[in-house]
Amino acid sequence: MNFFLTLLLLFVGLHNTGFAGEPITPVKITPPLADSIISIALTELTGYNLLGEICKIGPRLSGSEQSIKAIMFAKQKMEQMGFDTVWLQKTMVPHWERGDVEEAFHIKEGNMNRKLSIAALGGSVETPQNGLTAEVIEISSYDELKARANEVKGKIVFYNVPFDHSLVNTFSGYGKAVRFRSTGAIEAARYGAVAAILRSITTRNDNTPHVGMIRYDTTIVKIPFVAIGIQDADYLSKSIASDQNTRITLRLNCKTNPDAESYNLICEIKGSVLPNEIIVVSGHYDSWDQGDGAHDDAAGCVQGLESLYIIKKLQLKPSRTLRCIFYMNEENGVRGARTYADFAHAASDIHYAAIESDRGAFTPRGFSVDSDSATIAHMQQWLPLLNRTGIEWIRKGGSGVDISFLQNTKALIGYVPDDQRYFDYHHSANDVFSEVNPREFALGSAAITLLALLISEEGLE
Amino acid sequence: MNFFLTLLLLFVGLHNTGFAGEPITPVKITPPLADSIISIALTELTGYNLLGEICKIGPRLSGSEQSIKAIMFAKQKMEQMGFDTVWLQKTMVPHWERGDVEEAFHIKEGNMNRKLSIAALGGSVETPQNGLTAEVIEISSYDELKARANEVKGKIVFYNVPFDHSLVNTFSGYGKAVRFRSTGAIEAARYGAVAAILRSITTRNDNTPHVGMIRYDTTIVKIPFVAIGIQDADYLSKSIASDQNTRITLRLNCKTNPDAESYNLICEIKGSVLPNEIIVVSGHYDSWDQGDGAHDDAAGCVQGLESLYIIKKLQLKPSRTLRCIFYMNEENGVRGARTYADFAHAASDIHYAAIESDRGAFTPRGFSVDSDSATIAHMQQWLPLLNRTGIEWIRKGGSGVDISFLQNTKALIGYVPDDQRYFDYHHSANDVFSEVNPREFALGSAAITLLALLISEEGLE
Repeated sequence: MNFFLTLLLLFVGLHNTGFAGEPITPVKITPPLADSIISIALTELTGYNLLGEICKIGPRLSGSEQSIKAIMFAKQKMEQMGFDTVWLQKTMVPHWERGDVEEAFHIKEGNMNRKLSIAALGGSVETPQNGLTAEVIEISSYDELKARANEVKGKIVFYNVPFDHSLVNTFSGYGKAVRFRSTGAIEAARYGAVAAILRSITTRNDNTPHVGMIRYDTTIVKIPFVAIGIQDADYLSKSIASDQNTRITLRLNCKTNPDAESYNLICEIKGSVLPNEIIVVSGHYDSWDQGDGAHDDAAGCVQGLESLYIIKKLQLKPSRTLRCIFYMNEENGVRGARTYADFAHAASDIHYAAIESDRGAFTPRGFSVDSDSATIAHMQQWLPLLNRTGIEWIRKGGSGVDISFLQNTKALIGYVPDDQRYFDYHHSANDVFSEVNPREFALGSAAITLLALLISEEGLE
Repeated sequence: MNFFLTLLLLFVGLHNTGFAGEPITPVKITPPLADSIISIALTELTGYNLLGEICKIGPRLSGSEQSIKAIMFAKQKMEQMGFDTVWLQKTMVPHWERGDVEEAFHIKEGNMNRKLSIAALGGSVETPQNGLTAEVIEISSYDELKARANEVKGKIVFYNVPFDHSLVNTFSGYGKAVRFRSTGAIEAARYGAVAAILRSITTRNDNTPHVGMIRYDTTIVKIPFVAIGIQDADYLSKSIASDQNTRITLRLNCKTNPDAESYNLICEIKGSVLPNEIIVVSGHYDSWDQGDGAHDDAAGCVQGLESLYIIKKLQLKPSRTLRCIFYMNEENGVRGARTYADFAHAASDIHYAAIESDRGAFTPRGFSVDSDSATIAHMQQWLPLLNRTGIEWIRKGGSGVDISFLQNTKALIGYVPDDQRYFDYHHSANDVFSEVNPREFALGSAAITLLALLISEEGLE
């Protein structure tokens, strides 16, 4: 606990009233309180049921009509929960749209031999209206692409880099493969490719394409770029092995519209002692346009919201302000995070700490903390309490994309659930509400509630 | 390491040959070796694929034709893997069979109003051929049953005790509810009930009945006892609330046959230094007759087998004998475990330690060890290595039903994966191969492989 808070608590203790005049009961974070939090999360399933309602609206790609509908729906829910403030923070977001034409065929002897399971990657340009047909060149590394640069012209580059299943942490496997998605269109176009195909980055052996953001370079021609299901990637690879002139027809009419108006959605419980010291609990509300964006990341948003709900339900009056943010546009622009960070840095309030949940709604494992080692050691003293929710560790590490824009916090914290299944769902039609386990989801809410309260009441030093 | 092993290793070191004359390379358990084990498990998926083949045969209820077929299939697989011994250990098992008649209807105004989702509990007697029809009395505790004893005669007792979702450990929730399954038929019949119905013990909100073993008392009449899906349990409860004379018709033709011949299936890698010190890796191969018995517990058996497979594949020559046991009849009699324990206690070999996996094929969390605190503290030194597979803790606690019959071991060890989803599947038609995640399964194999090797090479003191 810091000196200022100690003084204030003394002051409040003497006066026994808060800023609004109501009596203050300092919140003591005890094992029975932890168990009450867990019990509300697991038995009411308020967050899980709300997640189900949100997912029914559909995916929430930035700029889409559904994303606005989902924001307004969640705003209404926050208002019904009776928080101290609920507001929309305007932010302009990129507005890319998948078209109604999206198909690829393997061509054999001039005929469409097999329809391939593909999906345009986020931000891809369209093909000519009648599609494009070209030979496919299979590439397993950028070194190979460079070495075979003179074969690429006029062809479709097929990045066929399998997920490295030998790594226990699936985020490491994802990290190894994702650069081909990020810069694959640029590198292929550099050598004259007319389009590119990416083997989906996934841990699941099915044929669902997994999408995600791509980059273009203003100095290099933009070419269409699609993800292909891994079973069709294997099929394509076999075709190429037996026929070097394997050709594909690709037709897409996706497009990038002008930036659209959208919003971060924010609600809070005002601190009873230090209202200008803010602890953020957050996720990102936008998703890709496949599936429901249930795990990625409606779940993270709703866990943050459920934390505030539980605290209110228990009639706790936390010392610091707890603010829940549904960030917009993490997936393809991080505009919401930038807008919020600009606002935060201009405000006189102090952003004391921030928690982000953006790794799926699986069983709690730990918290990854971007802070100094003294703060982390201080937090580790809370492990016996946090362990009641399944949290096993608190370690130095990265936090979350959205909160990483915040400066001068004491700690930026990523909630880390079990990661074995995350990339089965990530950015694909597999990411639907029915694949969220209610108990795993709710334990995440409980873990975040408890950590936010501990930071609020005990401070980070 | 104990004194005897040290002496023997010195002896072997001098002679540089094992008992069969082949050169001995002592196995040093290093981080790179751990990573090789993990990599084989995660990338080959040998165990996971074998599990899929086993599940195709169908469930493996003790005494069933399918159980024998599955034993012979796995025996052949073990032989193909080339272990030092593969053998069947005969054991007589109970042979209960679900009949081809199994139905229950809610009766309203004399008509069959709604078919209920039920399944006879394991060992239940049949109903009269034309079924039985009786009023239902809803009971929420044994205290209530006792208090209302004079209302029970001629009725069907409906134990409607919901799973306690507030408990983080789902095995605790199961433990609270399971006594109504174990002794519910006895207690209901004591007061003259003609049948009993149990609200399924499950964490999943669906309508699938979850079965399991029941007990009868030779001094009290045996009455039919079925599980009902929890959605129909709620329906029934509502019916009773609005109509105290709610009646049900129940028809079952399940039966108990004479004991049948069955087998424990055993294979091993002989120890190169201490061949008469045995480390057991095990699961139980029998299952209930709903679903595939994938999580419960073909998975545990195959994880043990995969451990031996990985050790062989890496051409390691463990010091102690590693023995894999597929126990028969854990679910309704533990006859296989008793037979094996009798054999073990009569043999001159030493059962040094035993590991059982029987909590589903989910992400590794820890090992629960039945041993003295010095041994547990010794094992805890291995946590940095085991953590590479996801294992976070080693604690004193229960081990596994089958291995608990073994006496005079240094340690009996239960493998503990994450438990949040286990009772979604347990003893029901939900427990099928497609609900096993390949990575979660394989990490369990890797954790067990590593622990078995550590015990073998470094000893338990």
